[in-house]
Amino acid sequence: MTMSLSAELWPDVQPETARRLMLAGVESFAERGYHATTTRDIAGAAGMSPAALYVHFPSKAALLFAISRSGHEQTLSLVRSVMARTDDPAERIRRIVEDFVAWHARRHRVARVVQYELHALPDEEYQVVAGLRREIEHIVRDVITAGAATGVFTVGDPRTAARAVLSLGVDVARWYTERSRKSPKALGEEYGELVLRMLGTDPA
Amino acid sequence: MTMSLSAELWPDVQPETARRLMLAGVESFAERGYHATTTRDIAGAAGMSPAALYVHFPSKAALLFAISRSGHEQTLSLVRSVMARTDDPAERIRRIVEDFVAWHARRHRVARVVQYELHALPDEEYQVVAGLRREIEHIVRDVITAGAATGVFTVGDPRTAARAVLSLGVDVARWYTERSRKSPKALGEEYGELVLRMLGTDPA
Repeated sequence: MTMSLSAELWPDVQPETARRLMLAGVESFAERGYHATTTRDIAGAAGMSPAALYVHFPSKAALLFAISRSGHEQTLSLVRSVMARTDDPAERIRRIVEDFVAWHARRHRVARVVQYELHALPDEEYQVVAGLRREIEHIVRDVITAGAATGVFTVGDPRTAARAVLSLGVDVARWYTERSRKSPKALGEEYGELVLRMLGTDPA
Repeated sequence: MTMSLSAELWPDVQPETARRLMLAGVESFAERGYHATTTRDIAGAAGMSPAALYVHFPSKAALLFAISRSGHEQTLSLVRSVMARTDDPAERIRRIVEDFVAWHARRHRVARVVQYELHALPDEEYQVVAGLRREIEHIVRDVITAGAATGVFTVGDPRTAARAVLSLGVDVARWYTERSRKSPKALGEEYGELVLRMLGTDPA
């Protein structure tokens, strides 16, 4: 039995109809942008009536928020999971980059909505997502600061370095396509080495 | 006499009315996205009638193309200018990154349209812009390959390294705002050092 794409993307979202609408939202936003997409477009792409959409999401903004929050929770969760697995700053950074980059490559369509439609969120929802982003950034910055303190890393400003590390991963969503020659995993590993060098440590 | 913002952004575009429309286009696209913006919105933002817009740009796509092509020509030109000034691979990369990053920070609103609305271009116009992008990427890749050949750089795959170097600059357009604490120039210098380290060479 193969899992549906929407179940793979949003394993925590129930029921399947809600996931199907989120997938239709990602596709519609990717094609025409958030502002030019109507709830009617999204419902149509999911093979539903607009009324059926409102059962699950009270508005287009609520649907965007569900996609955005879930994407940020997923990336925060993979960062946290690396933190739980190892204490070594270089290993932490390497694995965070591997997983973060691979996520943005594998889910580049979802990731584009997650990363580039942020400012379309209503203020309250934006603040929730901004909080998740800050948490990811703080973890990465703290690992870099810890590595710099023990001399493993050589960096000027840990805040700028953390921004650059995450930037590399985020931008993968912009350019990665199904036709890219490297697999998400291989790209993540290569970026992990580039980032360790960037932080002044030998990846070997 | 202070130069107008549009003259600073597009010194090669004449007359001033065309530049004013490009600026109104950037602002409208930034606010609502390309697809949700009409030529009427843009003309209105520039204080003109839709008919006056069509004197300069036959369509919304033509206006997007003018903004996109100009942005790519400007970044290609700063890359070429660095190439003309020095032969040393490390110096070339450092200065390319400094200028490319500073451009994306200083002009982040224009740069967002340039980098993120690419796929809204009609095919023929897209090909022109894609050609300019390829040229920038090839120059950076060739410098990295040359540096790796003489042992100045240590990189796995020059293509991936070039992609990562440019990625760092492009992504600045996404997150940089007027409120960012670092000036475009200071950010460019810091990224120049991060990139040299990433390529396995000591920036000092």
